[in-house]
Amino acid sequence: MRTMAVIGTGLIGTSVALAVARHGVTVFLADRDPAAARTAAALGAGTADPPADPVDLAVIAVPPSQVGAVLAEAQDRGLAETYTDVASVKAGPERDALSHAPDPHRYIGGHPLAGRERSGPLAARANLFRGRNWVLTPSRLTSDDAFDRALELVALCDAVPVVMRSQEHDAAVAVTSHVPHLMASLMAARLCEGPADVPSLAGQGLRDATRIAGGDSRLWGDILQANAPAIACVLKDLHTDLSRLVPALDALARPGGGGRDDGMRTLVDLLDRGISGLAEIPDTRPGATGRASRVRVAVAERPGELARLLAAAAEAGAAADDACVESAGPAGGADGAGGAAASGFVVRFGVPTRTAERLVAVLDAGGWDAVREDHRGSDDALDHDLDGVLLTDTVRSGRRPQ
Amino acid sequence: MRTMAVIGTGLIGTSVALAVARHGVTVFLADRDPAAARTAAALGAGTADPPADPVDLAVIAVPPSQVGAVLAEAQDRGLAETYTDVASVKAGPERDALSHAPDPHRYIGGHPLAGRERSGPLAARANLFRGRNWVLTPSRLTSDDAFDRALELVALCDAVPVVMRSQEHDAAVAVTSHVPHLMASLMAARLCEGPADVPSLAGQGLRDATRIAGGDSRLWGDILQANAPAIACVLKDLHTDLSRLVPALDALARPGGGGRDDGMRTLVDLLDRGISGLAEIPDTRPGATGRASRVRVAVAERPGELARLLAAAAEAGAAADDACVESAGPAGGADGAGGAAASGFVVRFGVPTRTAERLVAVLDAGGWDAVREDHRGSDDALDHDLDGVLLTDTVRSGRRPQ
Repeated sequence: MRTMAVIGTGLIGTSVALAVARHGVTVFLADRDPAAARTAAALGAGTADPPADPVDLAVIAVPPSQVGAVLAEAQDRGLAETYTDVASVKAGPERDALSHAPDPHRYIGGHPLAGRERSGPLAARANLFRGRNWVLTPSRLTSDDAFDRALELVALCDAVPVVMRSQEHDAAVAVTSHVPHLMASLMAARLCEGPADVPSLAGQGLRDATRIAGGDSRLWGDILQANAPAIACVLKDLHTDLSRLVPALDALARPGGGGRDDGMRTLVDLLDRGISGLAEIPDTRPGATGRASRVRVAVAERPGELARLLAAAAEAGAAADDACVESAGPAGGADGAGGAAASGFVVRFGVPTRTAERLVAVLDAGGWDAVREDHRGSDDALDHDLDGVLLTDTVRSGRRPQ
Repeated sequence: MRTMAVIGTGLIGTSVALAVARHGVTVFLADRDPAAARTAAALGAGTADPPADPVDLAVIAVPPSQVGAVLAEAQDRGLAETYTDVASVKAGPERDALSHAPDPHRYIGGHPLAGRERSGPLAARANLFRGRNWVLTPSRLTSDDAFDRALELVALCDAVPVVMRSQEHDAAVAVTSHVPHLMASLMAARLCEGPADVPSLAGQGLRDATRIAGGDSRLWGDILQANAPAIACVLKDLHTDLSRLVPALDALARPGGGGRDDGMRTLVDLLDRGISGLAEIPDTRPGATGRASRVRVAVAERPGELARLLAAAAEAGAAADDACVESAGPAGGADGAGGAAASGFVVRFGVPTRTAERLVAVLDAGGWDAVREDHRGSDDALDHDLDGVLLTDTVRSGRRPQ
């Protein structure tokens, strides 16, 4: 790819332009607002002049309802050899392309899963898409050439291509993006009501849970309208769940009333389903996908000794969050055989394999007896062990206090 | 305060103990699970032995439904001069204290607004409460002595005391904490259903929106049950909103059907209410409360020039997120008087006053003409200016291109 056009130099369009311009691609920038295109150009994203010849690929970065019209107009004037878009809804643009675009086979839908709270070209980042999934939704007419160009674009942006049908994509983002946005708006809206001191009790949890409600309401109105059928479907399920939850809370609110056990069951069942759902979200933090190792170390029971161990482990790159501690019983432990026997802790660290070696070396140097336990159980079992409450079974370490 | 007891050495109890132990207070740790108290002691949070004499203050760090019983038991054996708790629901524990505790005047309710996803003593941090609000809910019987001890505890933890009635507190946290938790659970639960590739489309937005659903379901069941009346009230409002939203989405899902305009209005109205609600959440980021200054700089329109300016500003501590850009129109601007006149940008940075001076110096040194504009308008107006879309009105800078 040598030349590219970006139509719409907002956050996403400008970020795409910055990313491919780094690789020497000549980028032609256009926006309904000429000042926005010129701002993107002044950021180094390309030129705000029109191309003299058809470019290799045009990226349409406009709200979903406008993709079809912009595509048809661009194809009418022969702007590019191939076309893609970056709208967060895919079935509508595909339908519009198939029914109105002069050359629907030159088009493939796309949706990079990246964004920021800020909008506009100044918020753009060349590395916005690094490591992120970028969904491509070829239609039944999409040519190999259009597909290949889009794959090249994804690669130039350091993103990961994910190929889906447009309807599947829309059903998925209704769950992962659009309904969460609406729920965040519903919750944040509550803060406008009621006593003025309510927001002063907002913690990080509320901030995180409502952050996505901050997007531009016209753009989001357009996005949500474009995916209305899939969103309505998910909202109805939520509405049903909520219709069960309200009477459960009502029952729990009546002291001594009936239905409290049922209410509590409904409540805890929902919380448990939520925890199961969270476990479905892939962990994309750096190192999260690497193979995990387990390091076991015995620690004497002395004030501050555990803190000293955790500080040493942190130096080796293992956080306390990676650790779980099992405890030897004190004198007269649960098995009744302890007498005045030794007590102490066994700490297990779950860390990426590349960290494990360094951790063992650092702990050994600090005077602790650290052992790798990679042969025990599968990674799945390890993840499960480390995922729960920290204090697990009481075990006997057999080590004497020092 | 010289001596303190902590009953319940989980995340919050151990963090309280670590915070006050730093100040030389002798802390006595106790937990239903002796291994948890010993782990906290090994972290340097205090001693797992019982005190010989009554301590100055006992902090009860157990689930809300157990506060009353633990308080009564501790007062029966004369553990402390004064008592507080750290449960996230306050009306129930107060009611239990008033009706069952031997000395209800020695007790004051408390709730530090801090937490982590991880639970247990290993997740504890001495600085967990630094700068956080800590609600105190004196009852009609609470003594000055108990109030003063609790204020001293809040100060030792570097937190900010907020005094409320217990019922007001519970109504507020229903909105800011409990209902958001339930909504996060409802959304995360959706990920267990439907096609397996749905979670692969999860972005940071979904992660943030559902993160709070990850807490221990038994502890959260206890918390939610303890605040059921206030939660039910907020859930009913949400249910009503959702009952309006579903038909709005249904109308938008029917191409060419009636009610689309009404549907869109309902949708955008909700999004706008959400944005208004977000604005109610105080911004507690470092520097957010300082007085803001505005720095204005004119920039020539050359590829990469804006990027160069933003890089220089970043060196002075001003992020691109703090900037907004206004653009001179190209030849033939909106006022029709442009002809072939000059074009360029005017960039305004909204930064803490202490950063403004450095920013002006750095930009001047870089060859730009930067000016402080502090006299214009109020801070409120500035915040408003910088809060919206980046590209605002087109203005004419009058500078010639270089």
